[in-house]
Amino acid sequence: MDAADFRRHGHALVDWIAEYLEHPGKYPVLSRATPGDIVAALPAGAPEEGESFEAIVADFERILVPGLTHWNHPGFLAYFPITGSAPGVLAEFLAAALNQQAMLWRTSPAATELEEVALGWLRRLIGLPDAFEGVIYDTASTSTLHALVAARQAAVDDVRARGLAGRPDVPPLRVYCSEQAHSSIDKAVMAIGLGLESLRKIPIDEEFRLRVDALKAAIAEDRAAGRLPIAVVATVGTTATTSIDPVGEIAEVCAAESLWLHVDAAYGGMAAMLPSHAHVLKGADRADSLVVNPHKWLFTPVDLSAFYTRRMDAIRAAFALTPAYLQTTETAPVKNLMDTGFQLGRRFRALKLWMILRSFGARAIRRHLSRHIAIARSFGAWVDAHPDFERVAPVPLSVVCFRWNPSVPAGSGLPPEGLDDANERLVDAVNSTGEVFLTHTRLRGRIAIRLAVGHLDTTEAHVRRAWELLVSCAAGAARA
Amino acid sequence: MDAADFRRHGHALVDWIAEYLEHPGKYPVLSRATPGDIVAALPAGAPEEGESFEAIVADFERILVPGLTHWNHPGFLAYFPITGSAPGVLAEFLAAALNQQAMLWRTSPAATELEEVALGWLRRLIGLPDAFEGVIYDTASTSTLHALVAARQAAVDDVRARGLAGRPDVPPLRVYCSEQAHSSIDKAVMAIGLGLESLRKIPIDEEFRLRVDALKAAIAEDRAAGRLPIAVVATVGTTATTSIDPVGEIAEVCAAESLWLHVDAAYGGMAAMLPSHAHVLKGADRADSLVVNPHKWLFTPVDLSAFYTRRMDAIRAAFALTPAYLQTTETAPVKNLMDTGFQLGRRFRALKLWMILRSFGARAIRRHLSRHIAIARSFGAWVDAHPDFERVAPVPLSVVCFRWNPSVPAGSGLPPEGLDDANERLVDAVNSTGEVFLTHTRLRGRIAIRLAVGHLDTTEAHVRRAWELLVSCAAGAARA
Repeated sequence: MDAADFRRHGHALVDWIAEYLEHPGKYPVLSRATPGDIVAALPAGAPEEGESFEAIVADFERILVPGLTHWNHPGFLAYFPITGSAPGVLAEFLAAALNQQAMLWRTSPAATELEEVALGWLRRLIGLPDAFEGVIYDTASTSTLHALVAARQAAVDDVRARGLAGRPDVPPLRVYCSEQAHSSIDKAVMAIGLGLESLRKIPIDEEFRLRVDALKAAIAEDRAAGRLPIAVVATVGTTATTSIDPVGEIAEVCAAESLWLHVDAAYGGMAAMLPSHAHVLKGADRADSLVVNPHKWLFTPVDLSAFYTRRMDAIRAAFALTPAYLQTTETAPVKNLMDTGFQLGRRFRALKLWMILRSFGARAIRRHLSRHIAIARSFGAWVDAHPDFERVAPVPLSVVCFRWNPSVPAGSGLPPEGLDDANERLVDAVNSTGEVFLTHTRLRGRIAIRLAVGHLDTTEAHVRRAWELLVSCAAGAARA
Repeated sequence: MDAADFRRHGHALVDWIAEYLEHPGKYPVLSRATPGDIVAALPAGAPEEGESFEAIVADFERILVPGLTHWNHPGFLAYFPITGSAPGVLAEFLAAALNQQAMLWRTSPAATELEEVALGWLRRLIGLPDAFEGVIYDTASTSTLHALVAARQAAVDDVRARGLAGRPDVPPLRVYCSEQAHSSIDKAVMAIGLGLESLRKIPIDEEFRLRVDALKAAIAEDRAAGRLPIAVVATVGTTATTSIDPVGEIAEVCAAESLWLHVDAAYGGMAAMLPSHAHVLKGADRADSLVVNPHKWLFTPVDLSAFYTRRMDAIRAAFALTPAYLQTTETAPVKNLMDTGFQLGRRFRALKLWMILRSFGARAIRRHLSRHIAIARSFGAWVDAHPDFERVAPVPLSVVCFRWNPSVPAGSGLPPEGLDDANERLVDAVNSTGEVFLTHTRLRGRIAIRLAVGHLDTTEAHVRRAWELLVSCAAGAARA
């Protein structure tokens, strides 16, 4: 593809994307594809001769678009909504063309230093002190894996050289998080050789927050049994209910016990930008590390996870290593980003964060976050006011967990299993309209419907429509 | 930014990128920034009010462009060159707008199934059998980490639950690779709790290939000492010299010893597309896993690493885990990509691979690879023919390792330390012209200059210019 062709196809693509971003509602939000549709529609091998870009785009529209679940749809109220905002999309376009590989300072001074600048901006916005040094990873899963490797390094200082196996001097290690913590913590302990049994899930209080008394008891029990506690992961904004663990109290425990405190604020941390919600990161200044994901609630296209730590020395101790083919000499000390992780390849993710923060400005970002929280509160109030629905968790941020329960308040009642099935069917019915997409989770053993507000373009009207659909589908189910 | 603004800025950006891709030579290939330049030129905090996209792009051009090392410059002959080809750049633009998160089949049927299709196409092009199932990760570092986690899982089947620490039943584990293997293997063993001492670096032969006799001896020695060998990593295209380990013979050893064989073909695997070089993957059909990186030698913008394995069951055994908030019900069995790795977030990387394979077609891709190899051979011949330069490694693919040695053939001779310094200065002098960028490495303790051909737009003329600069800078240094 020569420059003239690139111009032609590029301009056509700008128009396609503009139309897509402007009218996301023209597609059903949840794909209606059935398993195997896309594989069946494509040939088994690459073409021998090159094809025109028009032909490729035509197949994209015909075969792939029906298989998209539209994360950019304002009716996307599932999981944590994400937004590929316009400045973020443009920044990714530019980053792909520049194709920087910022493993060393010299291989991209701009990407290396802009990462420091953009992470500094974000750090100040969420109120973390200067002592936290940042690095960008792909996902919160990777950030948390690095946090736990650093905790392991801090606890067993020759683990880098000697590992964990076949060592009578290293007892079983222990990491703590609440029963509501994210599966990425389970996966991290599995990956780094601690094993799932090393992860103690601490019971929660009535608001789904880690119980500090139970944490203390678990640590004491493990120490008495000869195990070595190394870290606690506190969550600010759990995935199911967005509950906020008492970070300050947990920090006290970690200080007293010399444990690494990692705060998983991947979604919830952004709320700390709001004066009304600065408390969500209260105590996080005493954490050893924290992750917050711009690709969740900061309108940044996936992927971009911001990892902050007061102990980058532990990350470097775990990972810094320079083979001969990567040795450089600079006139002044430089930061080589390959030293702060296991991934050598690093694309230019900072560009989109920097462009988004400048294009929106802090005030507009706060306005959107605040708006999302207000919309969720409104929805929560509608649930509370309806006799056949019940809210099953507090709404500290922009997610509401609730269920249809026509036995409330009369208590006439379907059995719980019937209620669970009925709520699953209700979600399916609502999703099948193509207008909105909600998911469910399980809280205290029972199905809960989960409505999450977070897309840039989601307004109260979209959420009101979701509520209308829930009420009418429920009424239909009750009549049936 | 509304749709009209997006159109306006998008069209301007298409023109900027077209100009950039057409004239990459207008910038010095290696950035001339000095450490701290970019940080010093930017404010310490995000703006309170949003700024115009024109202002952001103006700062990008003024502050960031001088800090770019131009990986897209055809004079980039350092490391392994990479190319953000035009169809790849357009695909990334589209992927950012679609913002798919393909953790579950239902969250993006298109991204999930296109990954299977595009990886199938690539697998056939490099001649791997159908028994290899693929998954896309970000980098080869991540692919290799997953390979070694799978090897650990295959060797210690309760490691997922119980980990490695505090277990008298698990002896120290051992992984083998050559002295020339990539640092990502060191980082993987450090990350997953095996420790650097678990990685035995096997001596190499005169052509920088792993010595199978030494491998066998090391395994026997470790078994005798009560250690547990679990995996061998063979490299097809080592980073320093692109040497190709004898994969078939290593596969024999692994079969006899029941060890996991992982093939790191991140760069070199692409050459298997050429009938003349199909032998580079000879024996790889017997490997347990293999990584090849489209973002290295397949004109794909970073990041995209293709991981193939005959044992995806071991990856799933190590990582599959579904929390309540991610449970789904489909009418038919589906592949949920979150089950094959520790990263939950997954962007739509398959789109660019599919668009690149279609846009180029297999024939044009083979032509480019073949051309790169021919250019490297020409350069090698120039080195061989010059009395003051010597080639210090074979040229199996598109990289030439050589050094300036004015004592050849006269033997009059600078001492080796002097030669090393002289070669480092020579590389710096050549790089300072801004026309080309070469790096050096260390082979058998001595500095070697490394010229790597791999950018789509690199022609013999660029490499000839590099040679002219080397010869004239060397002559200048000899006179000085």
